[in-house]
Amino acid sequence: MQRIHVHELSEHRGERVRVAGWLQQQRRLSRLTFLLVRDRTGVAQVVVQRPELIAEAAKLHPETVVAVEATVVESDQAPNGVELHEPTIQVLSPAGAPSPIDLRLAGLKESLPTQLDHAAVSLRHPCRQATFTLTAASIAGFRAALDGLGFVEIQTPKIVGSSTEGGANVFGLDYFGRRAYLAQSPQFYKQTMVGVFERVYETGPVFRAEPHDTPRHLAEYVSLDAELGFVEDHFTVMAVAREAVAGMVAVVRDRAENAVEQLELRLPEVPTRIPVLSFSDAQASIEAATGENVVGEPDLAPAHERWLGEWARREHGSDFVFVVGYPMVKRPFYTHPDPARPGFSNSFDLLFRGLELMTGGQRLHRYDDYVAALDARGESTAAYEPYLAAFRHGLPPHGGFAIGLERWIARLVGATNIRETTLFPRDRTRLAP
Amino acid sequence: MQRIHVHELSEHRGERVRVAGWLQQQRRLSRLTFLLVRDRTGVAQVVVQRPELIAEAAKLHPETVVAVEATVVESDQAPNGVELHEPTIQVLSPAGAPSPIDLRLAGLKESLPTQLDHAAVSLRHPCRQATFTLTAASIAGFRAALDGLGFVEIQTPKIVGSSTEGGANVFGLDYFGRRAYLAQSPQFYKQTMVGVFERVYETGPVFRAEPHDTPRHLAEYVSLDAELGFVEDHFTVMAVAREAVAGMVAVVRDRAENAVEQLELRLPEVPTRIPVLSFSDAQASIEAATGENVVGEPDLAPAHERWLGEWARREHGSDFVFVVGYPMVKRPFYTHPDPARPGFSNSFDLLFRGLELMTGGQRLHRYDDYVAALDARGESTAAYEPYLAAFRHGLPPHGGFAIGLERWIARLVGATNIRETTLFPRDRTRLAP
Repeated sequence: MQRIHVHELSEHRGERVRVAGWLQQQRRLSRLTFLLVRDRTGVAQVVVQRPELIAEAAKLHPETVVAVEATVVESDQAPNGVELHEPTIQVLSPAGAPSPIDLRLAGLKESLPTQLDHAAVSLRHPCRQATFTLTAASIAGFRAALDGLGFVEIQTPKIVGSSTEGGANVFGLDYFGRRAYLAQSPQFYKQTMVGVFERVYETGPVFRAEPHDTPRHLAEYVSLDAELGFVEDHFTVMAVAREAVAGMVAVVRDRAENAVEQLELRLPEVPTRIPVLSFSDAQASIEAATGENVVGEPDLAPAHERWLGEWARREHGSDFVFVVGYPMVKRPFYTHPDPARPGFSNSFDLLFRGLELMTGGQRLHRYDDYVAALDARGESTAAYEPYLAAFRHGLPPHGGFAIGLERWIARLVGATNIRETTLFPRDRTRLAP
Repeated sequence: MQRIHVHELSEHRGERVRVAGWLQQQRRLSRLTFLLVRDRTGVAQVVVQRPELIAEAAKLHPETVVAVEATVVESDQAPNGVELHEPTIQVLSPAGAPSPIDLRLAGLKESLPTQLDHAAVSLRHPCRQATFTLTAASIAGFRAALDGLGFVEIQTPKIVGSSTEGGANVFGLDYFGRRAYLAQSPQFYKQTMVGVFERVYETGPVFRAEPHDTPRHLAEYVSLDAELGFVEDHFTVMAVAREAVAGMVAVVRDRAENAVEQLELRLPEVPTRIPVLSFSDAQASIEAATGENVVGEPDLAPAHERWLGEWARREHGSDFVFVVGYPMVKRPFYTHPDPARPGFSNSFDLLFRGLELMTGGQRLHRYDDYVAALDARGESTAAYEPYLAAFRHGLPPHGGFAIGLERWIARLVGATNIRETTLFPRDRTRLAP
């Protein structure tokens, strides 16, 4: 008999059907047992009355995979208004041990480390499933928005000959007897590819040997990267960035309705024009409002980002706010300076509900400017030479941005730890599963 | 003035317009110079008559990025039937050196190593652009087909605690003072995720420390992976694999029409039922036809795959053929044996025009079977324990497959070296750009 899914059961009242899934729970009453069988579409209630079958079922551990053939019967008390009667039960795959995670409750009660240790089981909880359904929809929305704007998807190497973002947080590896590194970003590659396709994006892993154990950082995460040529300045880039985020929200709304409902989320509206605040004005506002001495600091602290998030909601009814014109000193060397304001840059961050979601800006596009920028920071150009070569041969004025996928989801679902939005997180201490 | 693209020029006859792109070539005649300016949509011919402007332009290296404002004039001899007259030319970004690659010809005449050394420029050639347009369309088609079949996209870690496919060809790295590896495949993760979503796919990089320098192998490539639960056997998997490939071809046909034309490709038809041959029958046929002693060998040689490709085309008019039931000894330890034929497996390869494009099969799904399979190969289960845990808690009968994206494109465009279908290839000797 052909398997049907649990969400289809109500269309088969009175019929004999076959469902298959995980034996999530057994509820034993005096004369009968309810089995709850979960598949990817929902949970079915199976009523077992035959004493031999009740005894057989009692031996099965939770998460045993079973196929059930039974009759669909209307029931007011069952999920979806139907339950399964007079079942035969076939074990498709045994569970060899009690479940380390209790999947019966509305939420998971185990600590996060326990959940992560037993990810193979904890991810089966509907709330965890819902989170990663949002992830899949978000990445699809990012791609759809950029495809619609004439961008071409690219795949660039993750094993590289020199670090892209500088700094110490780079993983080294032995590459056929030579030293190589894991890419901290596809930065130079996406810039190079602007010379080929003008507009490119990549969705893939990036690696940071982040030595600190924080709720915001991972050693490996998924970066949604875009880069485009023939820009006026960073505002051209921001217009595209807005479309990318709007596309992510649109596909979440469209494809992940059940997940949004499961997690009781309020999806953000992405304003046609996201509010924009200059870095300097942001500092002045924060200083005026809080009395803190922030004007002149080179960056915004997390508390200041939260303040700006509240400001955007209060003043503009927006979950998003762009901050533009960060000081050069805190931006990477490939950042384009603001021609009108020495020391400041054509860069931006996009804050989502008071958290940095995206960072971007216009880049330098002339070879000589790269050499000067590296010199000014006391860095050797030699290590970067294979990448800088692209700039010798005509790269148009360009810019781009990157979104941390897990961070986006964390803010969307209100997770306090980014590990909750990563299937199998990697950090200083966690390398498995 | 708003920039328009070259392919829009013919809609603007008689108007003053602005285009921007790369100065690909200058053709000097006695009284005038033709400039060829390339953007991502085509090449425009600009007619320069003013002597000062001819002299100015003569100083510019090829690949200088320029903006041209000019009048669109009909011309029988120009590309698209129009050319640009009375131009003003603005240099947006200089090229600081002569181009290392000649982009003027219909094809690239430089050797492959030279092309790869100067990828930033050689990838700008229309033929190279076309190849990677096919790549983008193929990966989009893979995702669209599987999305349509209820699969969920996942992202799994590339830094892992133990090798997935065994063998020596794994890259090691220092992970905060511990030993870690780069994932050779997302194999265990996608299997684990069958327990969560039943049907999952991933498109991402995989890493093989391939010590041999061949035209078929890379140290890093893009793997299109899928895995699904509640399968009958490998034939259930093959039906989905057929849909994935058909989706790839469909989106290439739909979105990459110009690239197909540029490269003068014949796209394959994917038969509703791809021909299927058992490994044993394949060997018998090859032996009967060629006189070679192949029956009893544990695997097919590349020449035998070519023979089978020709057979499929001759006998079935198909560019594709499935070979099923490979000997267990040549398949990974997680392969499900054929219950009816000891020593053989529920596995398959899909050959495309005589080359292995995809490998897949049914997997073991019971924990005890994994322990037995590892024992039989003399491997310790300890290293795999974090992954095997998933099998203690109920994984349904399942299977999956993987396609090497670059290999697919190589076969599609007829490239003899897989490096031609990788933007920035990585091999034993190549780590940059």
